[in-house]
Amino acid sequence: MTLEVGVLGYRFMGKAHANAMARLPMFFPDAPEIERSVLVGRDEDALTEAADRLGFASISTDWVEVIDDVDVFYNLGPNHVHREPSVAALEAGTPVFCEKPLAPTLEEADAMAEAARTAGDDVPAGCAFNYRFVPAIQYAKALLEDGDLGEIRHVRGRYLQDWLVDPEAPWSWRNDAELAGSGALGDLGAHTVDLLRFLVGSDDLAGGIERVSGHLKTFVDERPVEGDDETRPVTVDDAYAAHLEFENGAMGTIEASRFATGHKNDHTIEIHGSNGSLRFSLERLNELEVLREGDRGYETILVTDESDPYVDHWWPPGHVLGWEHTFVHENYEFLSAVANGHEFEPNFDDGLAAQQVLDAIERSDDRGEWVSP
Amino acid sequence: MTLEVGVLGYRFMGKAHANAMARLPMFFPDAPEIERSVLVGRDEDALTEAADRLGFASISTDWVEVIDDVDVFYNLGPNHVHREPSVAALEAGTPVFCEKPLAPTLEEADAMAEAARTAGDDVPAGCAFNYRFVPAIQYAKALLEDGDLGEIRHVRGRYLQDWLVDPEAPWSWRNDAELAGSGALGDLGAHTVDLLRFLVGSDDLAGGIERVSGHLKTFVDERPVEGDDETRPVTVDDAYAAHLEFENGAMGTIEASRFATGHKNDHTIEIHGSNGSLRFSLERLNELEVLREGDRGYETILVTDESDPYVDHWWPPGHVLGWEHTFVHENYEFLSAVANGHEFEPNFDDGLAAQQVLDAIERSDDRGEWVSP
Amino acid sequence: MTLEVGVLGYRFMGKAHANAMARLPMFFPDAPEIERSVLVGRDEDALTEAADRLGFASISTDWVEVIDDVDVFYNLGPNHVHREPSVAALEAGTPVFCEKPLAPTLEEADAMAEAARTAGDDVPAGCAFNYRFVPAIQYAKALLEDGDLGEIRHVRGRYLQDWLVDPEAPWSWRNDAELAGSGALGDLGAHTVDLLRFLVGSDDLAGGIERVSGHLKTFVDERPVEGDDETRPVTVDDAYAAHLEFENGAMGTIEASRFATGHKNDHTIEIHGSNGSLRFSLERLNELEVLREGDRGYETILVTDESDPYVDHWWPPGHVLGWEHTFVHENYEFLSAVANGHEFEPNFDDGLAAQQVLDAIERSDDRGEWVSP
Amino acid sequence: MTLEVGVLGYRFMGKAHANAMARLPMFFPDAPEIERSVLVGRDEDALTEAADRLGFASISTDWVEVIDDVDVFYNLGPNHVHREPSVAALEAGTPVFCEKPLAPTLEEADAMAEAARTAGDDVPAGCAFNYRFVPAIQYAKALLEDGDLGEIRHVRGRYLQDWLVDPEAPWSWRNDAELAGSGALGDLGAHTVDLLRFLVGSDDLAGGIERVSGHLKTFVDERPVEGDDETRPVTVDDAYAAHLEFENGAMGTIEASRFATGHKNDHTIEIHGSNGSLRFSLERLNELEVLREGDRGYETILVTDESDPYVDHWWPPGHVLGWEHTFVHENYEFLSAVANGHEFEPNFDDGLAAQQVLDAIERSDDRGEWVSP
Repeated sequence: MTLEVGVLGYRFMGKAHANAMARLPMFFPDAPEIERSVLVGRDEDALTEAADRLGFASISTDWVEVIDDVDVFYNLGPNHVHREPSVAALEAGTPVFCEKPLAPTLEEADAMAEAARTAGDDVPAGCAFNYRFVPAIQYAKALLEDGDLGEIRHVRGRYLQDWLVDPEAPWSWRNDAELAGSGALGDLGAHTVDLLRFLVGSDDLAGGIERVSGHLKTFVDERPVEGDDETRPVTVDDAYAAHLEFENGAMGTIEASRFATGHKNDHTIEIHGSNGSLRFSLERLNELEVLREGDRGYETILVTDESDPYVDHWWPPGHVLGWEHTFVHENYEFLSAVANGHEFEPNFDDGLAAQQVLDAIERSDDRGEWVSP
Repeated sequence: MTLEVGVLGYRFMGKAHANAMARLPMFFPDAPEIERSVLVGRDEDALTEAADRLGFASISTDWVEVIDDVDVFYNLGPNHVHREPSVAALEAGTPVFCEKPLAPTLEEADAMAEAARTAGDDVPAGCAFNYRFVPAIQYAKALLEDGDLGEIRHVRGRYLQDWLVDPEAPWSWRNDAELAGSGALGDLGAHTVDLLRFLVGSDDLAGGIERVSGHLKTFVDERPVEGDDETRPVTVDDAYAAHLEFENGAMGTIEASRFATGHKNDHTIEIHGSNGSLRFSLERLNELEVLREGDRGYETILVTDESDPYVDHWWPPGHVLGWEHTFVHENYEFLSAVANGHEFEPNFDDGLAAQQVLDAIERSDDRGEWVSP
Repeated sequence: MTLEVGVLGYRFMGKAHANAMARLPMFFPDAPEIERSVLVGRDEDALTEAADRLGFASISTDWVEVIDDVDVFYNLGPNHVHREPSVAALEAGTPVFCEKPLAPTLEEADAMAEAARTAGDDVPAGCAFNYRFVPAIQYAKALLEDGDLGEIRHVRGRYLQDWLVDPEAPWSWRNDAELAGSGALGDLGAHTVDLLRFLVGSDDLAGGIERVSGHLKTFVDERPVEGDDETRPVTVDDAYAAHLEFENGAMGTIEASRFATGHKNDHTIEIHGSNGSLRFSLERLNELEVLREGDRGYETILVTDESDPYVDHWWPPGHVLGWEHTFVHENYEFLSAVANGHEFEPNFDDGLAAQQVLDAIERSDDRGEWVSP
Repeated sequence: MTLEVGVLGYRFMGKAHANAMARLPMFFPDAPEIERSVLVGRDEDALTEAADRLGFASISTDWVEVIDDVDVFYNLGPNHVHREPSVAALEAGTPVFCEKPLAPTLEEADAMAEAARTAGDDVPAGCAFNYRFVPAIQYAKALLEDGDLGEIRHVRGRYLQDWLVDPEAPWSWRNDAELAGSGALGDLGAHTVDLLRFLVGSDDLAGGIERVSGHLKTFVDERPVEGDDETRPVTVDDAYAAHLEFENGAMGTIEASRFATGHKNDHTIEIHGSNGSLRFSLERLNELEVLREGDRGYETILVTDESDPYVDHWWPPGHVLGWEHTFVHENYEFLSAVANGHEFEPNFDDGLAAQQVLDAIERSDDRGEWVSP
């Protein structure tokens, strides 16, 4: 059986997922067969061009029609269009893969997770936290599950970009609270929170994060509209920072910025346990630095051996992978779950959990005090 | 017009090029249309499986038939089968893309280059030195062409792997002088020599390398044959090193090894000029370290900006590329040259030039003295 | 005129300052002449041995006598003995150099700063924040003063050690609130806060830090007393983290830990401005990473050129300095100030300012909300 | 008994050794007592100033008188004055510590080593290869002696500086064959050869180096004389490179340059064995990168623990040492050997052995072929 896939969104994320789907047959021959059936959007011309380039059989400007017709629905649109189509698809029994953050607000995320629970386990509802699928992160996860780092004491995460340093950088939906929910917090922080939950979190929704103290900042209050004389207000954060307290006593500090001059996509995770430590940075995503019991310094491991997660599907040792491979891995796992009617993680509950933490960070910033997710 | 492509070889390189071809339409929409027409090999079963997985329309066990039928012929077989099919294809007026090293011996390389010259410029004969197509290398090339580093004084290249450290690692054609020509020298050194010619070489064949002093070493003399009781002799080098003297007075030191414990695919290039320096390492291929006039230290540049070579075809800044992308770039350039009847570089003369240098290194090692390529 | 120097404390800091004084004549010939006159402590035997080894002419077990006799008084004792002798010395008109943190509590620090102000500018009262005197930090300071980084957006500081990871590591005065004031916060955080005030702070006491949100954590509640069967409670923090908000709008995140497995003395500072960024790490203290306007990545500068701060006194370029050299530099500056009756910075007001921030971090942690220093 | 020390030379090396001697009592209390008795040179005014600054009791312009009067003689003059005073001192039964390279020519080195052998083991004749005394190098030596790296396959050493890149950099004795013997080869290469002999060499003189192939290069043929209109010819190498073949079958590649733009004092050693690898760089001399059996990547060890060689004499973990500390360590060992009438290594035979290798490199370069040391 070939899975017919409908995809809403054809820009950055549309391209990333279409590419991932296209690569499955050659590298993951046991992945389910799929067809990129229909690409959904509003601008028919742009859509036609994109469908052609991204290998879709047809286009549609109405997602309502699509969600019934397809076997799987990908929601890759801006945050504010995550809820409605996703919920509708799930209600129609169609598995959904939705980009992160799950929704602009906690309420919307809640509704989506509720819909996913109602749809049941055999209708997978995935949240596309692709960084879980970096081989080095999976390797780190295994270390942590084996207890190699001992009791976790410190957790650090940061996600640094610099594309808004220039005050003349144009306004976009990402600068708008209505459309995006939040700024660096939701866009980048969602990734960090999810990775920490994945790596060191416990099973409850917020991943064992008991309370948070948040700090949001907007450095530039309005930005020019491209091809226009006017400016529009920036109503989201340009940067955030937060303290976390885990129920097991670990401390966390996380932050993200779009104003970190010189940093392009620097998502760094550091963990210190009683027996060891590790470090990961997305800009060197083939590497993991690990310090185990008895070691004196970090060992820089190139996670490209055949025995490393997913690597046997690709190239020989030392032939490094790129950012896009994370999408291939997550699409492989998600589509396999769909085909087999299995659960997939990260799911909408994971998306909701991240949202709860982000929401708590915003509430904390508002109130100037610690709050619980 | 769609170019029909025939490919000899379906293992490591076959997969790398098939993947590259498959990715062109989505990322390089102006690339010529191609069809992966026929996959050539000897073992029909394996061939059928590979053709299916790699997206080829048909298979053939006889390259002689194929070279006439296709518009382009890829020779990705072991070194000792480079000459015959390539020459035949060129004689038939079929463009050829041949893996490196061009041939096991200088004589064969010579014959191939001769055939390419006879075929003429509108029948491109490319030698697949893919590392020329790393964005950071292209960036470095531009710096050097602009003279930003001044007069070149030192050139250093090394290519370190460790897959033969274990004396029980099985024998393969890569350990055999007849089949491979040489060992680390041809397999790895060819890449290094080509990159140095590309980056700092002059226009004559050997790239301005006037004389060389070579050193070859075989650490383990025989190896077990897999699934067998016998061993076979290792008749190629496990490692080589060479001094180079360039006609412009620059000094070069190059080396490669399959015995560099802990190094998987560490191809490192360093250049010092009178005004600046640069460093590149394949295991961190998105980065280039550059020191320009007036700088005190190396600047670590993440070569992933839209303005960087080829990067506008892929992802936003900081979303790193992998090893395989070099194949997409070289296939794009080669196939475009074929479609347009243009020259392509690196061509067979470049492959021959590298071979001349490798041959000189071997001769020097034999004689214990400096020789000219 | 030779300055007679009296020093209270003969352990780690006593050795560091004695060494610094001993090295001045050879490397800073224009430093004032001094005599290591008297070493002050309680244990006469240990004192005698230390005085001999550290080059002191005499010993005393009563600082009261000493402060009148000497020309300069160094207070290198544990935090809880900072106030009384320092204030008494200043009241006697004797310049004082006191180790950091200035005092265990804000009240004591206040009293000390008051005493220093009363004593007047020609009686220098220095607080020994030695990391201001790392050449790379002075280089960074000059960059920042010149505005090379533009408007400061982000400031990050962390100081990671791991000597308490083992729950059996013995109890010491550093684990006691009465004796030390606080734990990682005062011991390590004082350095970080001072460096940030030095590098990016404004002139008001707290260095332009308007409000803070703090988080303190004690991972191990009691520790064994060495050579004893009992344990004693740990009444200070093992780690702290804090958000800072600067009046100019910059965000800061700082933290320190004695539980960062694998990190020995990792004091790292990072600053992002609208035009550039910089990074410094104490474990590689000869290096500074700088990104200036127009650069794409960090330049790794080895701050060992003759033109670099203090370096002309030492060795040729690339002949790296160590941790202890910071003490030579600060002693040179402090003793020169004493000899010339000039002001010295960092002074007791700087020590007080750091204390105000540390105190605010503790108060914030208590209350669970942001507070102002 | 106090050892009276006479020192010839008061510039760079004079300062480095005087400083080392001055620091012994505080940090190595069991070192023999010494007096910096007499400083020897030609220019009385400069000598007087230096003696004062460097803590010498007296000066002399005639080494002949000095060698009899003192208990130890340090020969820190330019290479061409190494032989005569050193041999005379040894003949007088006075222990000698001579800077490296031992002599400008093999003949002179031979004569010196002969004199040392004649003087006997209780008259130590040390050659000041200070890099043996870096804690990280001693740590590496122990690893290698324990066989942790297995059979050695590859050895790499390079020493990069850039102080002659500018063709207008002034002429000095270091550019003259008569005075210096050779250029980068003797000045920098001597260090590299000695370290390799120390780390992986066997017991015979040349350290198991069976044959070498050398390459010397002079990039700038004449240089201006400072404060003068004339230029003088450069008669030594600006850079060298060499292949080494060890009797145990290991390959070595070494090189040095004064034209490596951006590199100040970059002495890097790399070793690959059948079970592990290591890397060291002088510009980060507190660190050693080690890969042991079973490791996948290099572990970056900060060699500053109490248990590390010499470190217990200094500061707590992570409080890094500098270049000059290597001189303290070697002076401690040498002076202890003198006081106890023991042998000291590296001795004049070690200096001679390095010279043999350097000489072979020069001969090889002359002849254009491999030669034996």
